[in-house]
Amino acid sequence: MQAHLLTIGDEILIGQTTDSNAAWLGEQLALMGADVTGAQTVRDTPAAIRRGLERGFEEADVVLTTGGLGPTHDDLTKTVVADFFGVELEQNADIMERIERYYFQTDRDVPEAVRSLAAVPAGFDLLENPVGTAPGLFYEETSAGSTGSDDSQGGRMVVVLPGVPQEMKRVMEASGLPRLRERGTGLGRVAHRTLQTTGIVESSLQEKVKDVASDLADGQSLAYLPSTSGVRLRLTARADADGDADRQDEAQRKLDALEERLRARIGKYVYGTGGDELEAVVGGLLAERGRTVALAESATGGLAAHRLTQTSGASAYFQGGIVAYANRAKTELLSVEPATLEAHGAVSEATARAMAEGARERFGASYGLSTTGVAGPTGGTDATPVGTVCVGCAAPGSGARAVRLRFTQDRQLNKELFSTALLETLRRDILGIEDVSFVRQADA
Amino acid sequence: MQAHLLTIGDEILIGQTTDSNAAWLGEQLALMGADVTGAQTVRDTPAAIRRGLERGFEEADVVLTTGGLGPTHDDLTKTVVADFFGVELEQNADIMERIERYYFQTDRDVPEAVRSLAAVPAGFDLLENPVGTAPGLFYEETSAGSTGSDDSQGGRMVVVLPGVPQEMKRVMEASGLPRLRERGTGLGRVAHRTLQTTGIVESSLQEKVKDVASDLADGQSLAYLPSTSGVRLRLTARADADGDADRQDEAQRKLDALEERLRARIGKYVYGTGGDELEAVVGGLLAERGRTVALAESATGGLAAHRLTQTSGASAYFQGGIVAYANRAKTELLSVEPATLEAHGAVSEATARAMAEGARERFGASYGLSTTGVAGPTGGTDATPVGTVCVGCAAPGSGARAVRLRFTQDRQLNKELFSTALLETLRRDILGIEDVSFVRQADA
Repeated sequence: MQAHLLTIGDEILIGQTTDSNAAWLGEQLALMGADVTGAQTVRDTPAAIRRGLERGFEEADVVLTTGGLGPTHDDLTKTVVADFFGVELEQNADIMERIERYYFQTDRDVPEAVRSLAAVPAGFDLLENPVGTAPGLFYEETSAGSTGSDDSQGGRMVVVLPGVPQEMKRVMEASGLPRLRERGTGLGRVAHRTLQTTGIVESSLQEKVKDVASDLADGQSLAYLPSTSGVRLRLTARADADGDADRQDEAQRKLDALEERLRARIGKYVYGTGGDELEAVVGGLLAERGRTVALAESATGGLAAHRLTQTSGASAYFQGGIVAYANRAKTELLSVEPATLEAHGAVSEATARAMAEGARERFGASYGLSTTGVAGPTGGTDATPVGTVCVGCAAPGSGARAVRLRFTQDRQLNKELFSTALLETLRRDILGIEDVSFVRQADA
Repeated sequence: MQAHLLTIGDEILIGQTTDSNAAWLGEQLALMGADVTGAQTVRDTPAAIRRGLERGFEEADVVLTTGGLGPTHDDLTKTVVADFFGVELEQNADIMERIERYYFQTDRDVPEAVRSLAAVPAGFDLLENPVGTAPGLFYEETSAGSTGSDDSQGGRMVVVLPGVPQEMKRVMEASGLPRLRERGTGLGRVAHRTLQTTGIVESSLQEKVKDVASDLADGQSLAYLPSTSGVRLRLTARADADGDADRQDEAQRKLDALEERLRARIGKYVYGTGGDELEAVVGGLLAERGRTVALAESATGGLAAHRLTQTSGASAYFQGGIVAYANRAKTELLSVEPATLEAHGAVSEATARAMAEGARERFGASYGLSTTGVAGPTGGTDATPVGTVCVGCAAPGSGARAVRLRFTQDRQLNKELFSTALLETLRRDILGIEDVSFVRQADA
C-alpha cells in the first residue's frame, strides 16, 4: 500500500496551526507497514483540492484527506472528492436524523449550514465519528485507476477525515485504520526502528558505523536525524517474503541484526530507542537504583530541572534545584568558596565541581549536577567564549568532577545543548560508561 | 510573490518529526504579504525532490526547501537543486576555511563527509548560518521561467534551508527574509498584525470584541490563535491602492484603526504584539524600572526560571530561583514554616505566599514569585485536583498575595500554563493592572 496525505486549509499554510494530523497519520501508516509516499497542504479552494487529489494518486493508491468537513462555507472537500470520482452527493437519512435529534435536545433549530453535514457522496461508506458531528468517509474504486504500486490489486482508495485532531484520531482508530488494514495489500514489507544517541555529532557517528553503512543488505538503510538532544539513527529494513506474518517477522529479524551490528560500534552513545526522551531515560535509571538527584544551574537557567520534571513520577528521584544566576547565590546557597570564584572564575571546572557538591549536600541527594557557562550572545571573553559550559557531577562515593565543553553562538540552542550535556553526564556516571569526549551535538 | 514550501525528509512523512518549519515559514511569509500557495513533504530521493520542485514552481515563483543540507549521504537537496537549475556544484573556499578552522580549534581532522558541506551550486548566494555549519542558499533565475503570478517580473527563486528549526529560523531572520523582501514584488497588499493576549480564553475574548468583529470594514478580518502563552489575535487588512508604498501605508492605517478599537476593549490582556514573548516583555518591564525577581518553583519545576532566562540580558533582573520539589526544600531553603504546610497543605495560597516571600528574601530581590500545585497526571485529590496551582507574589512595599487557579489534566501543558500564570501575575503587579480573574488559557 502506498499512501499520500492531503491536508486542506489556509490556516495551516499561513502558520496559524501546525499540522499535527499529518505526523500522526504518517506514523500510524508507517507502523502498519504502508509506504507513505508524500504529503501536501493545499488551500481551501476546489481547484487546489482537486489538484491535490490528482498529484496524490500519481504516486499512491490511497489518499487520506484531513480538513474541510465541518459545516462552514469553506468546507469543500466532500463536494470536490465526489466530483473527482464522478459521483453525486446524496442526503444521508441517518446523519440527518442524528443532527435533528441533537438540535431537538438542545432546543434549537438546525442551522442551514449544518444540514450540509448530511450530504454524502454516493457509494461512499461512513466512518463513525464518536466525538463530533461530521463522520469520516471511505471509498474504493472497484476496477481500474490503480497506480504503479507492485502490490496493489484493487482500485484507488480515499479516506476523508475531519480536521480537528481529536476527531480525526478517533475516526481513524475506530474505523479508518481497520478498514485500510483489511483492504490494503503489501503491508508490513517495510519496518523502521530508531536508536537515540547523544554526545556525538552526526559526522562522527557516521564515521564510526561506516563499515556497517557500506555493507547493508538489500532493502536496509540508515538515516541520521540531528536534534538538540542528540542524533537519532533510523534503521529501515524491507522484507521479501509474501505472507503478511512471514514478511513482518523477516523485517523485524533484519532490523535485529542491523541493530546488533550498530550497537557493537556505538552502543555507549545509545540512550534509548523509539521516542524515548533522555530526561525520562535518566529518571528511570535513578528510580531503578533508588538514587536521587539535585541540580545547581547557572548557564541552563532552570532548563535541566524543567526537563527532569517533565516526566510523571519525577518526585521519586528529583529533589530540587537552585538556579544560581548571581555569584552571591553561588556562595550563599551552594556554599561555593569566594576564593574558588576568585581564583578560577565563575565559569570554571573548579566552580562547577563546587556547585555540584553544594547542590548534593544542600538537598541531601545521591547526585549533584551543575552547569556554569556563557549562553550568550554577549558575555564571552577570549578565555571563555560564548558557548562555553562547565558541567559538574558529584557522585555517591567519589569526589566531584567536571568537564569543559563548547557549543554554539545561540543562547537558546546553547541552553538546550548544555542541559543535554548535564543529563548525559549523569547517565554515563550511573551506567559507569567510561568518559568519552563530548562533541557539539547538533551540527546540521 | 507566490511562495511554495517544500519539506524534505522521510522522518517527517513517517511521523518521527512534526514539521514545525512549514508553519513558521508560512507565518513569516504571510506576515510580509506573500501568498503561500501550498506545501509539500517529499522523500529523501532525487526523484521525489525534483518532482517537488517541479510541482512547486507550477504554482509559485519562489520555492523554499527545508532539510537535507547536513553532511551525511542522504543530504541530496543541494545536488538536486543544482541539477534542476542546470548548474554545477563548486567547492566554496570560505566555507571550507571556516570548517577547517573549527576542526583545528577542537583539535580534530575534518571528516570526509563534512567536506561536502563546502559544495555550493554555481551562482547561488550563501545565506549565513550563525548557529550551524551548513549555510542556507539563495538563487534567482535571471530571465524566463516565471509563473503566472500577476506581479512577478523576475525569474524563479529558490531558498534552500537547513532542517533543524533553530538553524532554519536564524538563517531566515538574518538573511532569507530580508532577501525575499528586497526581491519580491506584489508584497504588501495584505498586511497582518498580531496582538498577544493572556489570562483570557478565546470565547471570552470573542465576547468582548464582538461589536468590533461584527462591524469590520471590507478586507479586514480577525482570527483567534490559542497557545499555552495565551490567545493571539490576528488582525488582517487588505489595501486597494496600486503603488507599493501607498498600498503598504493604506494597509497599515487600516490596521492602526482596528488595533485602536480592539485595545479599547481588551487592552489590559494585551501583553505584546507580533512575536513578543511574555517572558521578554516581563523582563523588559523589570529592567526599565531597575527591579529584580527571584523564583520559588514547585509545580513548574524550573520552567519559569528557564523562560525568564531565555532572553539575553536576563542577569540584569533575574536573581535566581529555587526548585523546591520536596517539602523539606520548602522549609529549609525557602523558610516556609512547617506549621503552614501542616495547616494548609503544600498546595495552598498560604504556602504559595510563604514561598514567594522566602524567594524574595533569600535572593534579596524586589519581587518573589512562586508556584505550588499538582501538574499531574497523578497526585490529585478531591480538594486539590490535578491541574490546580497556587501562584504567589511578594511585591516591594506590600505583603505577599496568592491566587488559586485550575487548568488541565496534562502534566506538560499544565507546567506551561502554570508558568504563564506566574509571569502574567508579575506583569499585572508591575503595571498595577487591577486583578482580573484568570481563566483557563488553552482549551485545546
